[in-house]
Amino acid sequence: MIIDVHGHYTTAPKALEDWRNRQIAGLKDSALAPKVSELRISDDELRESIETNQLAKMRERGSDLTIFSPRASFMAHHVGDFAVSSTWAAICNELCHRVATLFPDHFIGAAMLPQSPGVDPRTCIPELERCIRDYGFVGINLNPDPSGGHWTSPPLTDRHWYPIYEKMVELDIPAMVHVSTSCNACFHTTGAHYLNADTTAFMQCLTGELFKDFPTLRFLIPHGGGAVPYHWGRFRGLAQELKKPLLQDHLLNNIYFDTCVYHQPGIDLLTRVIPLANILFASEMIGAVRGIDPETGHFYDDTRRYIEASSQLTPAQKQQIYEGNARRVFPRLDAALKAKGK
Amino acid sequence: MIIDVHGHYTTAPKALEDWRNRQIAGLKDSALAPKVSELRISDDELRESIETNQLAKMRERGSDLTIFSPRASFMAHHVGDFAVSSTWAAICNELCHRVATLFPDHFIGAAMLPQSPGVDPRTCIPELERCIRDYGFVGINLNPDPSGGHWTSPPLTDRHWYPIYEKMVELDIPAMVHVSTSCNACFHTTGAHYLNADTTAFMQCLTGELFKDFPTLRFLIPHGGGAVPYHWGRFRGLAQELKKPLLQDHLLNNIYFDTCVYHQPGIDLLTRVIPLANILFASEMIGAVRGIDPETGHFYDDTRRYIEASSQLTPAQKQQIYEGNARRVFPRLDAALKAKGK
Repeated sequence: MIIDVHGHYTTAPKALEDWRNRQIAGLKDSALAPKVSELRISDDELRESIETNQLAKMRERGSDLTIFSPRASFMAHHVGDFAVSSTWAAICNELCHRVATLFPDHFIGAAMLPQSPGVDPRTCIPELERCIRDYGFVGINLNPDPSGGHWTSPPLTDRHWYPIYEKMVELDIPAMVHVSTSCNACFHTTGAHYLNADTTAFMQCLTGELFKDFPTLRFLIPHGGGAVPYHWGRFRGLAQELKKPLLQDHLLNNIYFDTCVYHQPGIDLLTRVIPLANILFASEMIGAVRGIDPETGHFYDDTRRYIEASSQLTPAQKQQIYEGNARRVFPRLDAALKAKGK
Repeated sequence: MIIDVHGHYTTAPKALEDWRNRQIAGLKDSALAPKVSELRISDDELRESIETNQLAKMRERGSDLTIFSPRASFMAHHVGDFAVSSTWAAICNELCHRVATLFPDHFIGAAMLPQSPGVDPRTCIPELERCIRDYGFVGINLNPDPSGGHWTSPPLTDRHWYPIYEKMVELDIPAMVHVSTSCNACFHTTGAHYLNADTTAFMQCLTGELFKDFPTLRFLIPHGGGAVPYHWGRFRGLAQELKKPLLQDHLLNNIYFDTCVYHQPGIDLLTRVIPLANILFASEMIGAVRGIDPETGHFYDDTRRYIEASSQLTPAQKQQIYEGNARRVFPRLDAALKAKGK
């Protein structure tokens, strides 16, 4: 089977965005703040938003199952305080849970966390536990910069983040390291901030010793690892200057990259440079880049085509990228599939 | 000939760093502030610092001429105010000028600017003009983030920067877009901040219309363009979503990438994806990554080896990357060479 480890609910019914806009308006005038109960989205609306979008494209492109989390750019952890993020995260996670319940063969959840700038990450744990234990989600998205482009939190190697990591290890779940909307005018959200965050997270791990403290902690770095595979020689050399072990030993038991790279040469570089055990299939479809590439006639984010067209990969290696690695990095996904005889 | 368009004076005599440390100490206690005249470095010291380092490596590796600018990480525009940056830039530029005077066949200058956070870039113009007109420098380094990792300046497309661009157009010089030391704990200087800045600058230009206002303005994005070539499909797709022209037309008459990518697969991707007219040979040697790659037995930053080993490039194409493009992007370099009959 083909598992897409990076999907967001970018096509949620408009009522969700309207509710969020009212929540944001309520920050200035509490009379405008909506109740959670005022958000009403029917199962039929959810079904339609998925069937005509993600599920239609999964069928066209031949992927079977998507790890599905709330829309990344809408997490916007910089908005309001912890209470605001907490309510918003609960709503968004519940919607993903409802999608996974409606389409159990095609979607399984990953949680956004109710992060908020300057707030102890420990506060995220109740929502995290609810999603994993009650909803059956298989991973989380962790935002290394809840300020939205001002980078005011400590690096991921700082003990600040350890309560999250302790819970991840206990529950045996990985985190995709994924920022949200940039509110810094220097950084375009999907064209700069996302990729910069990927590179930044990797380098934070390279300079630190996080995985000595958490040998089983697993990070998935999206968007093909930002700039990292393209500059693999630079990172190997920097590790050497810093007297770190080889990257293979220092980081690659804990860090994985997805295949959200939207052209053939990028995927070819990724699979040439990064060990195949560290590459997980993903498309982030109906995401940052939704158009058709005039050079190929196919959607930019139809990443399966690039894997299929790779002359470097054997069929068994492709299957490892499509399925085997995801089942290893997301053990709760593997368990859920096995429980269904898959 | 082989022109390395990206070299910094990373090996300056220790007296320079000592003077800078005293200048920084003087910010807190003006009694400690040194006079400019207290910095004394002899020609013999300059010669030795170059002959045993950059020039020795240029001879070993077979490059002929380096465009040489002050050490990027030492620019540290976030330190002090405009007066501090102004004094420091003048000192650093003058040292590069002395090196170029001592070794006129092997070095030609590019200027650092006396940028300072929150200060009008117009204030940089006297130093810029001095370097180009009096020293014969052929380009400048422009720091899009003088705050050092807090990104408090407007994007490069903002009119804030136009006084610099007007002068660049008048003098027909390009700018290498190059940040300095990060003082944000999230960003490792050479492993994250440099690459992020490259990606960020490209995306700023993509979203804007800067080159409509300045059709002949030229930016050189170092470090192989950060994440850009690896994600070329993403950027093509984002331009399409934003209703911009094809990148070829929108940006590639004005933006160039260097070859500071420290492994063969990275260089192969760069030369496969980016039009050859937009690639300029560079190594940033004796820079961020100074070691020997155990996988090849050669220095990581010996980028000529990767160009030479490329099976995609004909000898004429390699020469275009080594020399032709540099002479086109740096017309004052071309004029200086022609004046010597080269």
